[in-house]
Order: sequence, then C-alpha cells, then structure tokens
Amino acid sequence: MHGEIISVGTEILLGDIVDTNSAYLAKELSKYGIDVYYISSVGDNKERIKQSVINASQRSQIIFLTGGLGPTEDDLTKEALCEALEIPLYEDQNEVKRIKNYFKNREIEMSTNNLKQALIPEGAIILENTLGTASGLILEKDQRYYILLPGPPKEMKILFTNQVIPWLNNKLRTKGTFLHSHTLKFLGISESKLDWELQDIFKAQTNPTISILAKDGEIHCRLSAKVSSQEEFNEIITPVKEEILKRLREYYFASDDTRIEEIVGSLLNKKRWTLATAESCTGGLIAQRITDIPGSSRYFLGGIIAYDNAVKKNILGVPEEILEKYGAVSQETALAMAQGVRKLLQADISLAITGIAGPQGGTADKPVGLVYIALVGENINKWERFIFSGTRNDIRWRSANWALYLLKRSLEQFESRSF
Amino acid sequence: MHGEIISVGTEILLGDIVDTNSAYLAKELSKYGIDVYYISSVGDNKERIKQSVINASQRSQIIFLTGGLGPTEDDLTKEALCEALEIPLYEDQNEVKRIKNYFKNREIEMSTNNLKQALIPEGAIILENTLGTASGLILEKDQRYYILLPGPPKEMKILFTNQVIPWLNNKLRTKGTFLHSHTLKFLGISESKLDWELQDIFKAQTNPTISILAKDGEIHCRLSAKVSSQEEFNEIITPVKEEILKRLREYYFASDDTRIEEIVGSLLNKKRWTLATAESCTGGLIAQRITDIPGSSRYFLGGIIAYDNAVKKNILGVPEEILEKYGAVSQETALAMAQGVRKLLQADISLAITGIAGPQGGTADKPVGLVYIALVGENINKWERFIFSGTRNDIRWRSANWALYLLKRSLEQFESRSF
Repeated sequence: MHGEIISVGTEILLGDIVDTNSAYLAKELSKYGIDVYYISSVGDNKERIKQSVINASQRSQIIFLTGGLGPTEDDLTKEALCEALEIPLYEDQNEVKRIKNYFKNREIEMSTNNLKQALIPEGAIILENTLGTASGLILEKDQRYYILLPGPPKEMKILFTNQVIPWLNNKLRTKGTFLHSHTLKFLGISESKLDWELQDIFKAQTNPTISILAKDGEIHCRLSAKVSSQEEFNEIITPVKEEILKRLREYYFASDDTRIEEIVGSLLNKKRWTLATAESCTGGLIAQRITDIPGSSRYFLGGIIAYDNAVKKNILGVPEEILEKYGAVSQETALAMAQGVRKLLQADISLAITGIAGPQGGTADKPVGLVYIALVGENINKWERFIFSGTRNDIRWRSANWALYLLKRSLEQFESRSF
Repeated sequence: MHGEIISVGTEILLGDIVDTNSAYLAKELSKYGIDVYYISSVGDNKERIKQSVINASQRSQIIFLTGGLGPTEDDLTKEALCEALEIPLYEDQNEVKRIKNYFKNREIEMSTNNLKQALIPEGAIILENTLGTASGLILEKDQRYYILLPGPPKEMKILFTNQVIPWLNNKLRTKGTFLHSHTLKFLGISESKLDWELQDIFKAQTNPTISILAKDGEIHCRLSAKVSSQEEFNEIITPVKEEILKRLREYYFASDDTRIEEIVGSLLNKKRWTLATAESCTGGLIAQRITDIPGSSRYFLGGIIAYDNAVKKNILGVPEEILEKYGAVSQETALAMAQGVRKLLQADISLAITGIAGPQGGTADKPVGLVYIALVGENINKWERFIFSGTRNDIRWRSANWALYLLKRSLEQFESRSF
C-alpha cells in the first residue's frame, strides 16, 4: 500500500514553520508497512491544493492532508478536496453543536465563521478533536482513502493516534512486515565515547540496524528491524539491547519517548519521597520540567528560584560568608542552597543548581558554562561541577538534564564516579 | 518567478529526519521575491526523482534539489536529473583532483565510488563544497534553472549563502523586487475573532497581502508585500498596520521575532522595577521564560514555586482561611500569593498564578484549564480569571503567555477590560 502526505499552509512555503507533521506521519506509517513515496507541501490556494490531491490520487492509495482546516478565509483544504473529488459538503448539526459548546465551555464568544468548520463532506467519517474546533476526516473515493488532520502538531498527533491508527489497523488486517524501532537514551556520555564502546556491535549490525543520534545533550541509540510482529521484534533486539546495557548501564536513563523527568517522578513515587528545588542559573527550568509530568504534585513540593543573591541569603539562608568567600557559583553555595530549600520546604530530598549561563558574566577562573549541582537528603550530601558548552539555552537545558540525571542515579543508589 | 524545492532522501520519507533544508530555502527565496508554490520530498529512487523533476519543470522556473549527491549507490539526484533533462555527465578532472586531495588531507583512504562525485552534467556551474566531497551544481535548460545542493544542512547553507545567492542576485538584478514581510503578534484574542474584526481588510488585501497564523496561543498576523526597498515596504504597510492596530491595539504585544518576555524585560528595565513570581500550576515556567533573556538578573529577583499548599501557606503566607474558604485555585489565593512573594523578595511588582493544568484535578465548578493570575505592586492589585483549553502543556504555556501579557499591559498602564 502506497501512502502520500500533503501538508497545507502558506507558512510552510514561506519557511515560517518547519513541517514536522509529515515526518511524524511518515515514521508512523512506515511502522504499518505503508510505503510513503511522496511528501509535499502546498500553500493556502484552492487550485494548487486541488492539483496536489489529483496528482496524489494517481499514484497513492492512502493520502494524508494536514492543515487548512481552521475557521479562516484561507483555510481551504476541505473545500479543495471536495471540489477535486466532486463530493458535496453539508452542515453537520452535531458538529455545529460541538463547536458552539466548545466556545460556551470556554466562555468565549463564537464568531459565525467558526461554523465553516461544521461543513462535512458527504460520507466522511468524522474524527472528533478534543483539543480544538477542527475535526479530522476520513474520506473514501475510488479505492482511495483521504485522511484530513488539523495542522497543530498536538491535535494532529492525538487524532492520528486515537482515531486513525485503529481505523488503519482494521484496513490493514492483512499486513506483512513493518519497520519497528526501539531507542535507548543515554546521558553523561559523549557520542564518540558511546560509539567507541559499541564499535564491535555496530560493525556486526545487520538486523537490527543501529543508529546514533545526539539530541539536546542526550545520546539516542536506535535499534531498528523489519519484522512481522512485536514478538519477533523483541526476539531480535533483546540480545543486542542487553549487550549494550551491560556495557553502558550507568549512562542509560530511558527508552523511546520516556523523559528523564518521568523516570525521576516514578522513582520518587516508589520511594514516597518529596522533592524541593533551588535554582539560580536555570531560573525555574528544572521545576518546570518536573511539573510537566501529570501527577507531579504527589512528590514535588515546590522550589525557590534564587536569582538574586539576596534571595539565596535571606530565603535559602546561604551564609553571607560563603557567598563572600566562595562566590554564588561554587560547590559551597550549591550545597547551602540545597540544604536551605530542603529545610524550608521540609522535603525528603532537594536539588540545587548555581552557575553562569552567559553570554555575559564569565571570568577567567569562572567561565560561562560553569555549573554546580548539589543534592541533599538524609545521609545524602553530594555536589558535582560541570563546564557546559553552547548557547545560554544549551547550558541551561544541559544543566537541568544533568541535575535530573544525578537525582535519578541517587534515587537508584547508583555510585557515581565523582560522588 | 516561481520556485520549487525537492528534497531527496528515503530517510525523509521514513520520518527519520525532519526536512529543515526546505524551510530554510523557502524562507531565503521569499526574501528574493521567488514564490515557492510547492515543496516536496522523494526517496532515493531514480524513476521517482525523474518524475518529480519533470513535474516541477512544468510549473516552476527555478528548482532546488537537496540531498542525494553523496558517493553511495543510492545517491541518485544528479543521475536522475540528467536523465530527465537528457544532459550527459562527464568526469571533471578538477573535481577528481579536489576529491582525491580531500581524502589525502584527511589521511583517509578514498573508496573508488567517491569518484562518482566527480561526474558533472555538461554545462553545469560547479559550486565548490569546502565542508564535504559533494559539490553543488547549477544547471540551465529550457529557461529553467536547476540548483543541486548537498543534503547536510551545514553544507547546504554555506553553498547557498556563498555561491547561490550571488548567482541569484545577478539573475534577479533585472527584476529587483523581493518579498518583504512584517508580523504583528497578538495575545488574548482568538484566531476567528481576529479574522472577523479584520475581514474587510482581508477582502481588500492585494499589496500587502495578509495571512493569519495561530501559534502557541499567540495569533500572528503577517503583512507581506513585493517591494524594491525597505522604504517602499514601509510606505505600503504603514497605513494597513495602523488600521489593524487601531482596532486591535489592546491585543498586540510585539512584532516579528520579539518575544513577550523580552518586551516585559525592557519595560522593567526602563522603569527600574524589580520582579518576583509565585507560581503554582505553571511550576516555574514563567520564571524560566523570563530568565531565558540575557541580562534578566537586572530586574528579576527570583520566585517561589508553591506547588504544595503548605508552601503557599508557610512561605508565601497565604492565610489558611483563604485556602479553606476559597480553595487554592481562586482569585483570593492568587492575590495572596502575589502579595506574599512581593513582600518576601521585596520586589517592586509581583506576578502570581494558580490553576488546574490537568489532565486530572478538574471538577464541575473548577474545570481543568481554570487559571487565576494576579499582579501586585504599589497601587496595583489586579487579578484575572481564565479557562484555557488544550493539553497540560498548552494550558501551562498559555497561562504564562497571559501572565506576561498582563504584566506588560500593567507596566504600560493599559486599561484591561476586566482589570
């Protein structure tokens, strides 16, 4: 079965946004053995959208269109598709109700042009959108399937995952092999060191194939194999995965889409421990990432963002002498911050971070990128020193990554080299 | 002049990499007044690359192809293009020398298939690649220009900037017009409401053209015009911009790439005011965004992340009665949090936020998405209530957007509807 993806939106052709939807869909479809031969983008222009649909229908059986389902004048995907396929649109009363409720629940007044979104092609399956007003649609015509999804990636992904995949699985009952992959994620090791450690495995690689990708200070190691079932996939990758982890266990933190903040959260939950944070250079980034996880209120009490030294002193109780003798960016201050916030919030364990994110503020002995991370709990009094490279954002992000990684290892009672 | 971009590579169709090259080229080309009507991706398959080239040549005058210029068997862009255009390839001796030297200098042994990269289409301009072995190429046939660039973004960008742009400027000297755009960014108004308010302007739009894009809870309104100079551009857009702002001034916060946190920062700097934050549902996101801005230590003292009610009570001093009578998510708690953090950190102005980010924790009278934002300063005691939609992350992000937006308006002493 051949698939094709068309992303609609002038903002893509102007380079204002990068079309990540197509990459996401392509990856998902490959898992179902659907070969995507063409991906294309077209602007908010009815004639050109029509032409793209007609081209696609001549070479592909399943055609995804993303974007252009909004309420505005230049949202034309549905209209263009229906003209191309000569399918009439009707106003669906359930959709009218749904859209009106959407605004009512949010106490926003609805402008009449929102009802444009209630126009549905005859015979289409409606994919309800719980995040926005634009429903997705599945249309069949002349043994071709047309799947319309909203442009905002979050909405597109939820509709695809919850509604298109089940539909797809029904259509593909008779599917053969598909490409399956499993990603091992590492922190605290460089790409070249990981490459070095696993060289013999890479050399021997056939099925699964292995690829390495450095991403936001993490190293991702992807194992891919063409298989006909999940069981077969597990059989193939398990020995390779075990061999890799045998060598690099201490750097491994999670697989696939699992984030380090989730791992930390579940470890805290398991231990029934509470966490508090004291942040200087990261300015709240660590707390923000921890609270990204639903249910984090069970273990995260809160934190102090001690950006100004007065806050370090007056609220966290970092002794004046320490600030004067060692400076705000020092192991002593980091430890005092962690001890201070733990006491203040009465947390089981606390994490503190102080450093120089730049671009200004660096000196010869304290350069931009210098970061101290401290971890304090009952019988825990740890600190580590880093010099991170990159932009202000890189330095802040990597500091947070390392802080979460050190917390994870400490919760697992791992022995760190430098601890 | 119509442009078209084709990215070649099976890894794109598998979703293993996101095609950022096309977005980069599209943005650059728009600056030169080249309208990109189609962007497409095709795999490492000679027939399909040929077909894509033929389709493109029928609708566009300047066609960019990126990727597939490497030494391996499945690098076929050059070969497919030459077959499609019936142009013979010859082995260019300078290229042979260059490639051999490339390996000699790096003390790597050259595999013979690297010489495949020395094959050049007759009549092509060679764009030398200082970073890799794949040269770029410019080909002309039947008043169509074909520009081949290597796939690695670094190499593609350098070749484009240093060699394609000068060539392009020569070709376009005659025309001398380019597309220029200016984006007005709005908060606190829905896409459909903005569309409704400006409909007459859209209907009348010719030059500049206007397009709307909703992005992370912001609404971006882009004015684009084909001009020959910045002055001409200003002349054209100024009246339209003024008319739009006359109607929607209260929702406008910044233009182009300027972020709301920068605006807030410069306003605080101007006033010489210090800021402190107290965050519950946003868990540090606001502080993190404020401290994203270099130099934010001049005006940002710090903040309290009061995730647990005990922190609201014990550290921010929110009265127990308020928490019991009105609950943690209420205007009273929001105000008390703001007052508390302002006193504690001795800040000129303070921002507090409490709400339900979900997915759990909602009730009939306090649904997921309910958020209270409070702002306290000398003679300032403001709060506002919202019901945000979307995922947990959407709700948190939009809460932070609104908090920053309310702070901005307050710093500008704007009158808000509900303030």
